[in-house]
Amino acid sequence: MTIRHFLTTQDWSRAEIDALLEQAAAFKRSPAGAQLAGKSVALLFFNPSMRTRTSFELGAFQLGGHAVVLSPGKDAWPIEFEPGMVMDGEPEEHIAEVARVLSRYADLICVRAFPKFQDWSVDRQDKVIKAFAQYATVPVINMETITHPCQELAHALALREHLGDLAKKKYVLTWTYHPKPLNTAVANSALLIATKMGMDVTLLCPTPDYVLDERYMEFGRLNAEQNGGSLKVSHDIEEAYSGADVVYAKSWGALPYFGRWEQEKPIREAHRHFIVDEAKMALTNHGLFSHCLPLRRNVKATDAVMDAPYCIAIDEAENRLHVQKAVMATLAGRR
Amino acid sequence: MTIRHFLTTQDWSRAEIDALLEQAAAFKRSPAGAQLAGKSVALLFFNPSMRTRTSFELGAFQLGGHAVVLSPGKDAWPIEFEPGMVMDGEPEEHIAEVARVLSRYADLICVRAFPKFQDWSVDRQDKVIKAFAQYATVPVINMETITHPCQELAHALALREHLGDLAKKKYVLTWTYHPKPLNTAVANSALLIATKMGMDVTLLCPTPDYVLDERYMEFGRLNAEQNGGSLKVSHDIEEAYSGADVVYAKSWGALPYFGRWEQEKPIREAHRHFIVDEAKMALTNHGLFSHCLPLRRNVKATDAVMDAPYCIAIDEAENRLHVQKAVMATLAGRR
Amino acid sequence: MTIRHFLTTQDWSRAEIDALLEQAAAFKRSPAGAQLAGKSVALLFFNPSMRTRTSFELGAFQLGGHAVVLSPGKDAWPIEFEPGMVMDGEPEEHIAEVARVLSRYADLICVRAFPKFQDWSVDRQDKVIKAFAQYATVPVINMETITHPCQELAHALALREHLGDLAKKKYVLTWTYHPKPLNTAVANSALLIATKMGMDVTLLCPTPDYVLDERYMEFGRLNAEQNGGSLKVSHDIEEAYSGADVVYAKSWGALPYFGRWEQEKPIREAHRHFIVDEAKMALTNHGLFSHCLPLRRNVKATDAVMDAPYCIAIDEAENRLHVQKAVMATLAGRR
Repeated sequence: MTIRHFLTTQDWSRAEIDALLEQAAAFKRSPAGAQLAGKSVALLFFNPSMRTRTSFELGAFQLGGHAVVLSPGKDAWPIEFEPGMVMDGEPEEHIAEVARVLSRYADLICVRAFPKFQDWSVDRQDKVIKAFAQYATVPVINMETITHPCQELAHALALREHLGDLAKKKYVLTWTYHPKPLNTAVANSALLIATKMGMDVTLLCPTPDYVLDERYMEFGRLNAEQNGGSLKVSHDIEEAYSGADVVYAKSWGALPYFGRWEQEKPIREAHRHFIVDEAKMALTNHGLFSHCLPLRRNVKATDAVMDAPYCIAIDEAENRLHVQKAVMATLAGRR
Repeated sequence: MTIRHFLTTQDWSRAEIDALLEQAAAFKRSPAGAQLAGKSVALLFFNPSMRTRTSFELGAFQLGGHAVVLSPGKDAWPIEFEPGMVMDGEPEEHIAEVARVLSRYADLICVRAFPKFQDWSVDRQDKVIKAFAQYATVPVINMETITHPCQELAHALALREHLGDLAKKKYVLTWTYHPKPLNTAVANSALLIATKMGMDVTLLCPTPDYVLDERYMEFGRLNAEQNGGSLKVSHDIEEAYSGADVVYAKSWGALPYFGRWEQEKPIREAHRHFIVDEAKMALTNHGLFSHCLPLRRNVKATDAVMDAPYCIAIDEAENRLHVQKAVMATLAGRR
Repeated sequence: MTIRHFLTTQDWSRAEIDALLEQAAAFKRSPAGAQLAGKSVALLFFNPSMRTRTSFELGAFQLGGHAVVLSPGKDAWPIEFEPGMVMDGEPEEHIAEVARVLSRYADLICVRAFPKFQDWSVDRQDKVIKAFAQYATVPVINMETITHPCQELAHALALREHLGDLAKKKYVLTWTYHPKPLNTAVANSALLIATKMGMDVTLLCPTPDYVLDERYMEFGRLNAEQNGGSLKVSHDIEEAYSGADVVYAKSWGALPYFGRWEQEKPIREAHRHFIVDEAKMALTNHGLFSHCLPLRRNVKATDAVMDAPYCIAIDEAENRLHVQKAVMATLAGRR
């Protein structure tokens, strides 16, 4: 039997995504389960985490399983991902061994591996999680690399809870300022899931340099076509917010400036006014606001927006627990 | 229903404290329970821990629950605690989100946050745990901030095991030397619980500069009055030890020198003779000795004292497990 | 009743080792158990770990128990191991308290403590784990110090799975190059277990300087004598590999150069050709290859060897889980 991984929602059909969301909603109503009884999950963090780690660890527990948390290079050995290397540098072992050995111990392997922010042509290959998927003999789950599919599910579930059917809703993914150039993962993921749900999606960003990688733009257009929605890019704040049903905010570094962040910095600084505030939200169709968290208050969104009843970021964060239980139960159940 | 936290024993009546101690004694006789079955506990450590982490984690397990351990700023994101900030510094997220999200995942939130040792007027506000209590929608438990209420319960239980009723016993809290200026938390806590138990308490310290914060001195006097004991300060080692039933040692930095530790250092160095040794213990009424641990042997107490039958520090440490199970079971049972 | 520890296989008879291996094989066939139901295990890591931590933590879970993971000096307090010290340096507490307190919380204490690589006459005393065994009131398990007995059991189980009875098989322990001087623990352990299984053991190394500590050479000769095998040293690659049934590779620093590693470096560098490759393996009797992992590919063994069907390193790594469950179940069952 082929191993089914959860690396990107793009590998899962709309029907399969809907099934995961239904399972998640069921876990939200009734948290306890035995789908992972006696089973174990390895959580590998190459980058820090609060929500992801807590929700995966407790999700495994609530289903009768146990998660072991590993931080390679910190409390575990640094790992080599390239094949054929003469390993006389830092890494003490190769992904071939790491993935195979963990597959003997654990029933699921979950990986967080952010880009290195030096060369997008390298980072966009998503080598770390692909190497895990290549060598592992158990399912691999993406805990955020250059996409963040678990966040997508949590986001979609929160939107459905508040809006019901999402088809043809106006969805704005807005870039916001952040003092550092951040990962495009959640932005890529927002495009994928919003278009998959058939929404009319506007990507709002300061300049064409902030448009996302063409791979995800193309997936977005394809999803829109297949699910009756649309995807467009806008640099006009007022136009984008007008009549929006959903505003989703995220900061990210402009891809053409990848690795040359000092040159991008003044451009970013010049667009601090992209902050989500009450005036902008007033332009929407009583729109919901959300964000994947962590969020810098009064930089990405104002206190007033974060504390407003239309802010569903905490609901979305809670849903991480439920959707990840659905993903784990589904993948472990196939074995 | 109001959320009941466990931030300081001062918020809990003598009868409530007695009930917690009885529950703890019951857990000591019979460790297994189902009070946390399917429930989870988030343990947040802003500072290192051995006993606290182990005893909370295993305590949750023994009651059927699961504890997730987080170190913000190390393996989780750094957190902002001030309201209304434009968050363009280090912290990636605000306590408002952290506490609310964790409340969705976990049934209890436990926090260790030591003072920063720069400005006592800031540290004495105990902002970190108060912010958690403000924003969390589940009970918050103090794992040591500027008081250490779980240590208090463990200490009181150990004393009762050896002395029975504690009323009118002579209790000496003695300052000891340590190469670094330490937190006053356990000293504050010792005052609170010893007076709450109606003991005759002597705070023994080198000079008036080492008297504890007036807030805790005042709580101590109040407790003494209500529970039939007394509280006095002494700088005379012989007088203090004479006839003592209990000697509890702790080192702490002098509050008037807070943040100017180089100036305090020679004063501390001049009082190395406050070390607890056999000669001093010989002055007591066959007194017990204890300490919260970690303890530097032959600096705070001699090997002979630590290895003597009257040293109950290991019993006190064990009791951390039992009392914390009582606190968790009590708070989780109210939800 | 005396406490039984698992510090080295040399303290356990051949019959006892065989019983552990049988129990491990039974766990491999049927992983779930209740031998640690309600019990807990403290895992103390003074050095990093991936396999060891994962396999111990999941092994405890599979037997109904819970493992708490501690890293003294990192997320727990630094520890003093010498008796009688005036503790005014770095360590905040003494092993006497650490071991006694952990013994009150946990049913088993497992310790990883590598040598410090400055003075072999100090490191060979194995003070850290011996201090734990001295002060603990529960069984202590060695997770690698200057021997690695759990690896021995995993190795022996993997060899038996592939070869059946091991008596009189030709076993080659070969030194290999590594850019850093490594611990001799696994090499010492390979000698102990291979001789205990009655194999004809050849220690292959570049020069007499790389022969292992006389303590382990002597144990090896003793074991060989008692179990019908043999032990010899060789510096001739071709002779050693010829007709071998098992090739086990490991790198280690030469003991006479301990703490003077810059002087050893050119010697090590001159023996990079000790790498395990297909040409060398072709000299064997269809021999198996294994290694304890982590392994630097194309430095210690080539990709071709690592990916060959005769490489059983992944099986050996998997067996860590099963043998450690056997050790934990056996020791906890005696209490």
